[in-house]
Amino acid sequence: MELKKIMKTEILLRICAVLDLVLTACLVRLDTQTKRFTFFDRKATFRDLDALQVLVYVATVAAGYNLLQLIKCSVSAAVSFEGNWKGSYLYLAWVCFLLDQIAVYITFMANSAALQASLLAVTGAKDFQWMKLCNTFTRFCVQIGGSLLCGYMACLLMAFTSSISAFNLFRLYSPKRFLLLKGS
Amino acid sequence: MELKKIMKTEILLRICAVLDLVLTACLVRLDTQTKRFTFFDRKATFRDLDALQVLVYVATVAAGYNLLQLIKCSVSAAVSFEGNWKGSYLYLAWVCFLLDQIAVYITFMANSAALQASLLAVTGAKDFQWMKLCNTFTRFCVQIGGSLLCGYMACLLMAFTSSISAFNLFRLYSPKRFLLLKGS
Repeated sequence: MELKKIMKTEILLRICAVLDLVLTACLVRLDTQTKRFTFFDRKATFRDLDALQVLVYVATVAAGYNLLQLIKCSVSAAVSFEGNWKGSYLYLAWVCFLLDQIAVYITFMANSAALQASLLAVTGAKDFQWMKLCNTFTRFCVQIGGSLLCGYMACLLMAFTSSISAFNLFRLYSPKRFLLLKGS
Repeated sequence: MELKKIMKTEILLRICAVLDLVLTACLVRLDTQTKRFTFFDRKATFRDLDALQVLVYVATVAAGYNLLQLIKCSVSAAVSFEGNWKGSYLYLAWVCFLLDQIAVYITFMANSAALQASLLAVTGAKDFQWMKLCNTFTRFCVQIGGSLLCGYMACLLMAFTSSISAFNLFRLYSPKRFLLLKGS
């Protein structure tokens, strides 16, 4: 059965996404840098910026979601759907499609928000008298940059898997009539 | 032919998305507020924050893209594809699918970045000594909030249209074999 090929691709993509998301969360979570000023120490952590905290939570939850989907994939691979895709498989395909879409958009949103907040920390905003911070905490900022890159990689992988789940759903429908199942 | 129904839905969604995107761009672009301080005037515009400038450009380009797609839809509606969807229609469906995906992600990214920047302007960041600005320029901030809401509406509409273009593409493929066209 040729469909095993697409399932293998999906499993591979999801494993990569999980690893990437865990890497993102760890890179942001464990990023700290302490600077000694004349009178006090100042420690930069991910807690300084709400967007980074949100990114850690979202990446963790998204990794968990993809792990659950991996379990679902393995179960689906074990059970053969030859011929009986019209019943529960259809509902499952709709649920997977919708959840995948929600997951990829939320992860993408958290990443973009963190990117914008980090860019403000790099450039500052002169009109608002918001000062630059990355000339002080350079190593911290470089690590955040790396984790954002990882995060966007994970988003790309999740966008691919969401396309695969769209494929898995919509190929069940007839090419000639709207929302009519094939073979009916 | 039942497929006219889905084309009508797509045209309706795209018209709403264009209007919504134009509204977003105008609301951000035309938002100004001048405050008189003791020694000087201070005018808040969308140029103060890079993220808002980017949002205006992205919303304008996305509106133009959806207009182009509307023209494509009208042409497709005029020409009947009964039976001959295997040739150029397949390429067109792939191109529409990919462009729609790119458009919705970029619009979503610009919106999320603008939201994050605006949230920082509302809350400030005490750790960074970034001060709040929205207690000074309240009306300006409320209008930006409204435009971001419009922007997210437009993203939702574009996500729906991208699902429709995924449907238009993937229903051409066989439910039994991977990437095999139906009827081959």
